[in-house]
Amino acid sequence: MTLHRINRLQDSIEAGQIVYITNLTNIRYLTGFTGSNAALMVSDVDATLATDSRYEIQARKQVPDLETVIGRNFPELLLRSTKKSEVVVEGAHLSVGAFQTLVTTFEHKFTTNIGLVETLRVTKDDSEVALIRAAAEIATNAFQDTVKTIKPGQTEKSIRNSLEIRMRELGADEVAFETIVASGPNSATPHHEPTDREISNGDLLKIDFGAKVDGYHSDCTRTLIVGKPAQWQIDLHSAVSRAQAAGRDLIHEGIQYKAVEDEVRRSLSDSGYEKYFTHGLGHGVGLEIHEEPFFGRTGDAKIATNTVVTIEPGAYLQSKGGVRVEDTIVVGSQGYENLTNLPYELIEL
Amino acid sequence: MTLHRINRLQDSIEAGQIVYITNLTNIRYLTGFTGSNAALMVSDVDATLATDSRYEIQARKQVPDLETVIGRNFPELLLRSTKKSEVVVEGAHLSVGAFQTLVTTFEHKFTTNIGLVETLRVTKDDSEVALIRAAAEIATNAFQDTVKTIKPGQTEKSIRNSLEIRMRELGADEVAFETIVASGPNSATPHHEPTDREISNGDLLKIDFGAKVDGYHSDCTRTLIVGKPAQWQIDLHSAVSRAQAAGRDLIHEGIQYKAVEDEVRRSLSDSGYEKYFTHGLGHGVGLEIHEEPFFGRTGDAKIATNTVVTIEPGAYLQSKGGVRVEDTIVVGSQGYENLTNLPYELIEL
Repeated sequence: MTLHRINRLQDSIEAGQIVYITNLTNIRYLTGFTGSNAALMVSDVDATLATDSRYEIQARKQVPDLETVIGRNFPELLLRSTKKSEVVVEGAHLSVGAFQTLVTTFEHKFTTNIGLVETLRVTKDDSEVALIRAAAEIATNAFQDTVKTIKPGQTEKSIRNSLEIRMRELGADEVAFETIVASGPNSATPHHEPTDREISNGDLLKIDFGAKVDGYHSDCTRTLIVGKPAQWQIDLHSAVSRAQAAGRDLIHEGIQYKAVEDEVRRSLSDSGYEKYFTHGLGHGVGLEIHEEPFFGRTGDAKIATNTVVTIEPGAYLQSKGGVRVEDTIVVGSQGYENLTNLPYELIEL
Repeated sequence: MTLHRINRLQDSIEAGQIVYITNLTNIRYLTGFTGSNAALMVSDVDATLATDSRYEIQARKQVPDLETVIGRNFPELLLRSTKKSEVVVEGAHLSVGAFQTLVTTFEHKFTTNIGLVETLRVTKDDSEVALIRAAAEIATNAFQDTVKTIKPGQTEKSIRNSLEIRMRELGADEVAFETIVASGPNSATPHHEPTDREISNGDLLKIDFGAKVDGYHSDCTRTLIVGKPAQWQIDLHSAVSRAQAAGRDLIHEGIQYKAVEDEVRRSLSDSGYEKYFTHGLGHGVGLEIHEEPFFGRTGDAKIATNTVVTIEPGAYLQSKGGVRVEDTIVVGSQGYENLTNLPYELIEL
């Protein structure tokens, strides 16, 4: 890749300022370097990567156009010989201990900034959308293959294993996060860890899963029913699906995040389930499975074209069961592209 | 689990002090809570966990004996109504931005400490060793099953997939880290990411892998040969294996870490490969794949009984190939228990 992302960051850096980046995901985003130990210094006119000897060859391959220094003490390598500057560190990532060491070791003026690179990452370029689309396609194909094989008596863990193995077979580098398979009353826990519980007739079966391709994630949830659904399960599933569709139908460039969430909550309120929706509506997806923007922390902000977010309302009836329906979408000027190509009806196993 | 680990931490807390823990691995270690969003406050006499509504049911199940508060603003929940104290935060984990917010929001005196809980985690109790042993057994069995299936022409990625799928089949909750499969010249990169390169006769094949069971990791490396080895490959493999054995033979309770590393380097120096050993000798393994202690950062410290560490020398000949041999061991009073039950000879595929 070229270094155009560093150039975008440099647009916000003034002469006499240095941005000192330690978050590895942000370093990967800006440079393409994927090693597990690095720091990056960016001034208004140039940039230098520091990593250790394990990654010397890899750095030369992945970032041939970027000046790279090798060693263990990254602040020493990057900040010692630099003329006295304002050094802006990542307030959300650098530890307070590391910050204190910088302040006592160097004569620079150290300040903190939160979200400098994360803000750049909110809107995706075509290459990023293509990778999320590829991850979503693998995940949804694996889901459809796996659903055909699920049998009553199978454990949550075993279903998880089948789905994750199938994602790998279809080309995922790894799973995007620990797959949630939650059956029966367990489905009332939004973030349930799969257990040895065997699924049986009448269980809701909530599966939240994703694949990872070249660093990019996908995220999707569908809730199924083992056997025939009871009326309360049909009502619950239908209410959550309608609310999810209401959010999707509204979304487009320029609308406020909170307007979308309000619409989803209004729909759930109409059906009487709003009080059972106990988490946020969704989040950004990209190099991290959960990243900026987060619905509910966006204030009055409006959503921009090429933002990739999940829309994932749920309703959780304690000790009975819960339903969540989640897609990952790319926002466009008139609407959105849905990267999750899965039906919405309540699938009966 | 009981709260005896919190009691161990409380032994180092004075009246008027509060320890405010935000690192999720440390929270898991101290309490058994595995949710992805939490903070823990520990005083000399009591402890309170804060998490959000997604994890309310889970917290009640996992930490029934610990006072738990539910909400989003953990500092507000845990620190607002507490009488003015010295609040010790984790300097290596809390971000400088979060620290600045604490200092400006509350009247407590905030100080930093590094390694308060990590120090407790260095020596493992029996339940922890049992989980690492289980993870290592799954990983090594999966490795032996997979080795039987490897064929010339197979790609690095495909070998990785087979090994990781087999670990899952044998009961791993997930892989311990991104498996390294590095063939031919790629094996000269210590931390190589698997590619579509097809293995062929004459390739060294370095595989670094581990499984994860109930939060605990295992870590192991073996280097194989595709077809018949050349003399330089036999020499290289034999030198690294001898050095690894020299380190293991020396290790026992009370020896300095650096004495073990010195012995390994002496062995590699005798065979002429010491300059190609470009990383540390090993690291602790537990709830994290890399955790305290790290050989080479231990100063004059001596190793204690029930410390779990890797012993993993390597030698990397650029553009030709590299060899690493790695076991995970538990240190005992007279020697060690090897959790990695795999042979050391150069396996010919």
